[in-house]
Amino acid sequence: MDNKYEAVIKLLLETVQSNLAVEEKKKDMYEIPVGVSNRHVHLSQADLNYLFGEGYELKKIKDLSQPGQYACEETVIICGPKGAIEKVRILGPVRSKTQIEVLAGDCFKLGVFAQPRMSGDLNETPGITIVGPKGSIQTPDGLIIAQRHIHMTHEDAKRFGVHDGQIVSIKVEGPRGGIYNNVVVRANDSSALEFHVDTEEANAMSLNNLSKITIIK
Amino acid sequence: MDNKYEAVIKLLLETVQSNLAVEEKKKDMYEIPVGVSNRHVHLSQADLNYLFGEGYELKKIKDLSQPGQYACEETVIICGPKGAIEKVRILGPVRSKTQIEVLAGDCFKLGVFAQPRMSGDLNETPGITIVGPKGSIQTPDGLIIAQRHIHMTHEDAKRFGVHDGQIVSIKVEGPRGGIYNNVVVRANDSSALEFHVDTEEANAMSLNNLSKITIIK
Repeated sequence: MDNKYEAVIKLLLETVQSNLAVEEKKKDMYEIPVGVSNRHVHLSQADLNYLFGEGYELKKIKDLSQPGQYACEETVIICGPKGAIEKVRILGPVRSKTQIEVLAGDCFKLGVFAQPRMSGDLNETPGITIVGPKGSIQTPDGLIIAQRHIHMTHEDAKRFGVHDGQIVSIKVEGPRGGIYNNVVVRANDSSALEFHVDTEEANAMSLNNLSKITIIK
Repeated sequence: MDNKYEAVIKLLLETVQSNLAVEEKKKDMYEIPVGVSNRHVHLSQADLNYLFGEGYELKKIKDLSQPGQYACEETVIICGPKGAIEKVRILGPVRSKTQIEVLAGDCFKLGVFAQPRMSGDLNETPGITIVGPKGSIQTPDGLIIAQRHIHMTHEDAKRFGVHDGQIVSIKVEGPRGGIYNNVVVRANDSSALEFHVDTEEANAMSLNNLSKITIIK
């Protein structure tokens, strides 16, 4: 009798534990890692030449989570009519167009007001002065605040039930938690799953590169 | 016949417009103005004496929205093991205890990590070095990140259906909109209705001193 009782208890325990494991796995399936970006610059080869000298090549110091993207040793100064910000990191590789991603708070310091935009969407954006060790440029446009977005593969998108270009909201747990609306899904097969926010958005909800968030539609 | 038709249309229009006006007024009743705070310091008279000289009196430059509170001409430097932040504004009048309110991002620069706390709740908070024109102090505690909160009168609280100390969420409209959880209601009869956030929280959702938010429970 005792043996049977123990066997039943053991079976019950195993079932509960296995269900808990499934729940945990389900939760993991829907969690998205967070990548926090500080202000940074992407340069065209022509602008890199102006700022660092003809034929200059960027020196990689660290791979970023998105495949092929990296942080460079080089930094620049960006200047607007009201002020300058030093040590702004360059991200590689070079791009077809120069793009400067700043924080909303930086705009007050610079005296130039950028709008939230997706990377590459530079139509009618303001320009800025960039100063390097060999020269300076005044860009005609390219200054943006990065609109919050989620990189993912098409397979991830299928799992989350979303599609490339879809606008979703994301939920942050914790004492400074909340919801961010207007998060753009960027699904393509060269992306790593990651929710991108800038440092102000991260600090406002106590997010860091170890945080996880979930999509709500 | 035509006259009757016109009279009916006129009556309909008036009814619709009057309903719209009521809706608009209802909306206004539930909207809460936003107050954005940058990093700042409240000093005790003893600490003010150390930093600015015996018996020093703060010089008011601007009244703040909360009755009796004001921004002062004087600023200090705050320093941690990793760095210093200059021109930190002092808010008056002097308080019984010195309290230093910084942004989450400032903590990285200073190398001292504060937690979100309500004003006055300084138990087990870290200290910081404050430098003034006549001397410097190392505070035993007092460094906090201001927890987001809503000041209101008891009458406001009744209208919103909330009470002093209640934790609510607030909703922000617009392209960078979303929801902030864990917002503390501070209801007393010497307060002006205002949702207080710091500059990082404001920038993350494009809030400024002209914005309005609503409570969701």
